This record gives sequence, structure tokens and C-alpha cells, in this order.
Amino acid sequence: MPEFVPPRGMRDLSIDESEKFSLVLSRIEPVIRSFGFRRVEPTAVEHLETLQAKSGDAVLNEVYYFKDKGGRDLGLRFDLTVGIARMVANDFGLPEPIKVYAVAPVWRYDEPQAGRYRCHWQWDVECFGPSEVYADAEVIACALSIVRAAGLPDTIAKISHRGLVSAILRELGVEPGEQTLRVLRALDKSSKILPGELLDLLGQAGLKEEVVKRTLALSEIKGNYEEVENSLRRFESEQTKSTLAELRTIWDALGPLGVRDSCTIDLGVVRGLDYYDGAVFEGFDKALGLSVFGGGRYNALTAIYGKRALPATGVAGGMERLILALERHSSLSLGSTTKRIFVAVTEEEVRKQAIELATELRARGIVTEFPLKRWPLRRQLEYANASGFTYVVVVGKRELESGLFTLKELKSGNQSQRSKEELVSALLPP
Amino acid sequence: MPEFVPPRGMRDLSIDESEKFSLVLSRIEPVIRSFGFRRVEPTAVEHLETLQAKSGDAVLNEVYYFKDKGGRDLGLRFDLTVGIARMVANDFGLPEPIKVYAVAPVWRYDEPQAGRYRCHWQWDVECFGPSEVYADAEVIACALSIVRAAGLPDTIAKISHRGLVSAILRELGVEPGEQTLRVLRALDKSSKILPGELLDLLGQAGLKEEVVKRTLALSEIKGNYEEVENSLRRFESEQTKSTLAELRTIWDALGPLGVRDSCTIDLGVVRGLDYYDGAVFEGFDKALGLSVFGGGRYNALTAIYGKRALPATGVAGGMERLILALERHSSLSLGSTTKRIFVAVTEEEVRKQAIELATELRARGIVTEFPLKRWPLRRQLEYANASGFTYVVVVGKRELESGLFTLKELKSGNQSQRSKEELVSALLPP
Repeated sequence: MPEFVPPRGMRDLSIDESEKFSLVLSRIEPVIRSFGFRRVEPTAVEHLETLQAKSGDAVLNEVYYFKDKGGRDLGLRFDLTVGIARMVANDFGLPEPIKVYAVAPVWRYDEPQAGRYRCHWQWDVECFGPSEVYADAEVIACALSIVRAAGLPDTIAKISHRGLVSAILRELGVEPGEQTLRVLRALDKSSKILPGELLDLLGQAGLKEEVVKRTLALSEIKGNYEEVENSLRRFESEQTKSTLAELRTIWDALGPLGVRDSCTIDLGVVRGLDYYDGAVFEGFDKALGLSVFGGGRYNALTAIYGKRALPATGVAGGMERLILALERHSSLSLGSTTKRIFVAVTEEEVRKQAIELATELRARGIVTEFPLKRWPLRRQLEYANASGFTYVVVVGKRELESGLFTLKELKSGNQSQRSKEELVSALLPP
Repeated sequence: MPEFVPPRGMRDLSIDESEKFSLVLSRIEPVIRSFGFRRVEPTAVEHLETLQAKSGDAVLNEVYYFKDKGGRDLGLRFDLTVGIARMVANDFGLPEPIKVYAVAPVWRYDEPQAGRYRCHWQWDVECFGPSEVYADAEVIACALSIVRAAGLPDTIAKISHRGLVSAILRELGVEPGEQTLRVLRALDKSSKILPGELLDLLGQAGLKEEVVKRTLALSEIKGNYEEVENSLRRFESEQTKSTLAELRTIWDALGPLGVRDSCTIDLGVVRGLDYYDGAVFEGFDKALGLSVFGGGRYNALTAIYGKRALPATGVAGGMERLILALERHSSLSLGSTTKRIFVAVTEEEVRKQAIELATELRARGIVTEFPLKRWPLRRQLEYANASGFTYVVVVGKRELESGLFTLKELKSGNQSQRSKEELVSALLPP
């Protein structure tokens, strides 16, 4: 038997899910645009080489890849950052800074479980050009403004710096390069694995027991900038000092950006993707205990993809996660959506006039339906009730002769007699 | 060398393309919703079986299919109708009529040529439930309203009926079933092939020379309903009469729907997809000579996909086609888009205050940027000019002391001195 359902882990957006999606988008898109970001959309299907260029082997395992009919190795995008970086790196027409965003689905081939999909919708905000870390502060502020606008006022941005953590690891005796990357990958997993497993991973990376202990202590440093600087007083290498100065500049800019009260520095945040090489950040909703965004700086990525090197930083979050969070916070009310009007007919002879009335209302932007089936009036009213219409207008011979129509509000049962002009003004949005 | 470009025929949407896309969507979506259609989105990746179930072998050749890592035969959706029909057929929670729409990309594996892509964005409007052909009139009216709202007032809907054409073919001696399907497929190609090739195809379908001649004459019948009825006077089978009556009902309903002046009946329209089995229609923009939408009734499709049979009709069109058409008609002006404000700083010492001003403007929904790089003022102004900002506000020590800021309109060069409150009210949309 053929399976006429979405493939495993794939998903349809139902009417309800689409409405929620549109509502969230209508809240966050004006905020993103107010920061000066402009929308793009990279292709959903990429060359596999593009996807694996700089994202680490761990990600490759998760890429939904395949050979197409022409034998090409292709894959579905697993995030929006890679495609956007490839686009921007090859476009010479844009003056820098280049600030772009996308809202679109991405695919990952992980094992789907109950309620987990292989397809996720992401919002993604990226800034190309400035090596100055004002840009990092800008995308952090934008991310916090996005989740606030969506209805999550209690999200905290945890900020760290892979360059700073790497510099201190070096002072602790960890080799730059592969050993440091292995330590960062292990720390990234720390919230998902048992403490013992984390110790094993750090040991496998070749760290001595004493270094493991200090590495764990480092990853537990958190607080405001001054507190973190105090904890790091004894580290004095040039790289430590310069990356710490970057963190201070970010922290300082978050104040006038109006979001510093929602920020904390947390050196335990390292982010899993290998392409991050500067500041990194994660949005964590306190009440929900859920991560709602993540991002960071990736100065080396565009040089791989294109003809010019562009420092870059960006942040992304899941739309479903945002919708789920909003549902739990009960701040997603669909009750305030548009009025919907059903024009009922008492008999088929007046259908023409009913359609004319509906067409007139639609032309003014009023959501209007009329019976598409030859139903008796009673059946029409049942349908209007079952489908959640706001109003019913009844059109019959008597109404057409008198020029007065009965407008019934279905929830309250309130009825009133209205002329056509009165109908329109009653139904138009205020 | 790896190719860091989109795979062949795939496409990115640039900033400009996205802006045009959003503009068109903002024009057509309120119109679609005013008809009572509600948005959904079927999965992009389907089981191959779903895609090939009822769409004809010709389409299967065009499906972008592949085996995934788990060995499953999958494919990218080639239209939105199939996925929507599968969704609706398996959802028992919705009262009929079920009126839904989608705007999303679809993929076809045809040979990409200059300017032709394997990925296209479609808008798609579908109505499930009514066998009554009022629903066909409804989706035709919606399609015409969509292209009018987008800025194409001169589009004509050409309407035909595969059941009527099949009934007359039968009276002409063509066998129902496979022979009729072959004739319909040949007629569908008629505008793309040479007259001689069409004759060959009809001959290969087994038609005698006399029947070929009459079939061609049939496909050339067009006009308003009365004219077409007159031309068909000598055909008298039951199926001819009942399908002709359906065409009349559609024609009659198009009057009160306000679009009959833009409609014509044209029996040469048959549509290529095998799942159509009733009225079919195509939108043709006269000035451009381009098809801008197509659709029809497909009563048998949902019974294949789901647990219930639902008569259905729908229409779809290409977003790129609409944007292209609009560009040729010069009715796509991006000049009226949002004002963009650049807050420049005279020196780094006042950056904090400049960010505060930008944050205040953004909080009111005003699109505002400030320098993310440490640039001298001259370089900032060059950037603001090159990036098409509407206004520049300069923040310096003098401005902060006096409380008066210089607001410069870049296009005209006009300058004025404003307090912070005056700035906000000057920049807010009217």
C-alpha cells in the first residue's frame, strides 16, 4: 500500500499552524526590518560541497543529502547561514555593511522522534562587512527584540567568545587548532551529556587531569562584564586581552541598544558549528527552560565561498520553537484575527444578488463567503457556525425588496437590520 | 574546484527579488483571504508514490526525485495541488467547503535554459467539497482578482471543460479512456508544436482524417457562452448537455462575481495534467502574450490520497511570472517603500548617544541604522548615499549640547534642524 503521508520527519503546515506562523511573522518581521536588515532566500537545494565546506563533520552526518538524476551530490540546506554567506560572498554589487535576513525551512537528517521533525522553519539575521564587534551587539539586540516582539519578554542572551575561550585554553596548555576544537566541541555537548561523559571527552582530547579541572572551571564563569573580567584577571596573553576587549565593547554597546538587562556573559557557551570564530551567543527563555536563538561571528566563511573575504556575524532561531514558547506563555491569541462574514441565501433564485453583495464586501477587503453548495438555509447556518464565521448576512426576496438585511453576530446571537451601506460600515475594520 | 554556486537550475532570491516578491505577496494575499481562503503549506519533500499517483507519466519525467539516505524514494513537490489534496483528504476535522491557499516554491527537473529555473514560486488557491460548479466560478474570480490586484488588469480567463470536450469527442467517434486522454494531451501541446506535429499526434492516437479535422475545428470554438452553445447545437448526448449546463452555470456566476468581462470560453484549453476532470481554465495576459495562471476541477484526486472523496477545484500561477509581467507593465514601483534613516556620528565619543537615538527610532518601527564600522563622518555619508538611505541624522557633541539635530534628505539635499521629538514625528509614516 502506498503511504500517502509526508515522508518520515517531514511536515505539512495546517491552517492553524499557518495562522500561528503568519501571526509570529507579522510580529517579528517589522522589528527585523527596523534594524535595517533586508530579506533574501538562498536556494533550498545546495551542492553537497557547499554544505560540508566549513561546518564540521558532525553536521555532515545530519545533512539530508542525495544524488540527483544527473548524478550530482546535492543536499537540502541545514541552516540559512551557509546559503546566505555563499550568496553575499559572490555578490559584488552591495556596499558593506550588508545586513540581510531570511525566514524559511531547513532540513536535518537526525532520527525523528515524537514531535520532532526533520524540517524546521528558521528566522535568520546576518551582518557582513564590519570586523568591529558593534555588529555582534547589533545582532544580539535584534535577536532579543525579535523574541520580545513575539511575546517572550524573559529571554536572556548568554554571550561568550570562542577566541577568548581558546586564548585562555592556550594559557592552560591546550594546543591551538585541532585539540582546542575538540575541547570546544566537548564543552558544547556538556548540557546534553552526563558529567562523566564530558570528562571522558576532554580526556580523549588529550587533556591532563589538572587541565580538565581548570577547563571545567573556565566554562562555569558567568556574570556581567566586570565580574567576568575579575575572574579572568590572572590570564594575560595578548589574545586574551584583545578578545576580552572585544567582549567589553559588545557589552558596552548593549546598553544604548536597550537590551543589556537581558544579557549575561557565560563562558560555557561555545556553539557547536566549527565556522564560529569570534563572539558566540545563545538566547535562553528562563521560564520555559528552552533555547530560542543562537549565533555568533564567522569571519572565515565567506572567503571559502566567494571571491572576497567578509567578516560576518549573525543569529538564528526556530519559528516552531517560538510558536511553542508563545503557546506555553499563552501570549499567542488567534481570537483577534479578522472578522469573517457568511452571506446566506434563502433560496437559489437570489443567489446572484447574494454573490453580488459578497463581491462588494470582498472588494473592500472584508473576508466574505457565500454557499458554494445548493444547501437549504438551515444547512448554510450550520456550516457558518461550525466554521467559526463572525457574522451571517441573510439575503432573500424580502430583504432585496426592502433593502434591509439581517446581520447576525454568531457568538452573541445579536441581530440587527441594516441597509447595504450600513452593512459595509459595520463590517469594515475600525 | 568545488562550485560554490546554486546547483543547476536552482535559485537564490536576492534582496531586490525578495522585495519584489514581498510587494506582490502584500498585494495579492489580502485578496485571496477576502475570498475566505486560508493558508497552508504542504511538505516540500514527498514520497515519490504521492507525486506519481495521478499526475500522468509526462509529469513523472519532470519530478525532481531521488533516494534518501534511508533508501526511500522521495521527490520535491512539482506543484502545490497534489500536496494540498493529500493534506485535505486525510484531515477529518474540517467542515466543507474547505478553502485553502499556499504560496511556496515547487521544483521541476526540466532542462534549465537561460533564465529558466528548476525552482519556481507558485501561488495556489484550492476549494474542496462542492461538486457544484459555483466553486469553479469562485476560483476563476479569485485568480482574476489576484492578477488584477497585482497590477495586471488586462488578463483574460479562458474557460473550457474537459468533460464537455470529451463528450463531444465521443460523439465524433473518439473512444473514452486512453484514446480521449491522448487526444487531450495532443491538444494541450498545440500552442507549443507545429501544426504538422499536432496532426501526427492525433493520427498516432488512432483518429481518422475526418475525425482529426473535426477535432481541430472543435478546439477552435471560442466566444461567450451563447456563441459556444450555438456552435455546439448539433451535439446532443446526455454528457454533452449536462457538461454544457455546468459551463452555463459557471458563466452565469462570473457576472455577479464581477469578472465576466474578463472571461471567454475557449474549447482549445484542455490543460496538461491528467488529474483534471471537469472545468479547466487559463489566465492569459493579452498585452504580454503570457499565461499567468491555470487550473481546473479534479474530483478524483482526494479519493486516491485519503479516506474520503472530495470534489475539488483550484487554480495556481507563478510568482516569478507575475513579477516579470509587472515589471514589463511598469506597475511594480519599489520607490514607495519604507523610509530608511542613517544615524551618523561625528566622533566615536558620541557613539553611545547615537545608538540610543537609533534604538528609540527602531522602537517606533522606523528603519534605522548607525555605523557598525569605525568610519570618519565623510565615509559614513558616502555609505548612506550608496546604500539608498532616505535621511541622514548627524549626532555630534554640538548636537547633543543644543538638543537640535540636523536631518538631511539625501535625494533633495534639504536640511533642517530638529529636536528629538520633531525628528520622530518627521520620520514616522503618515
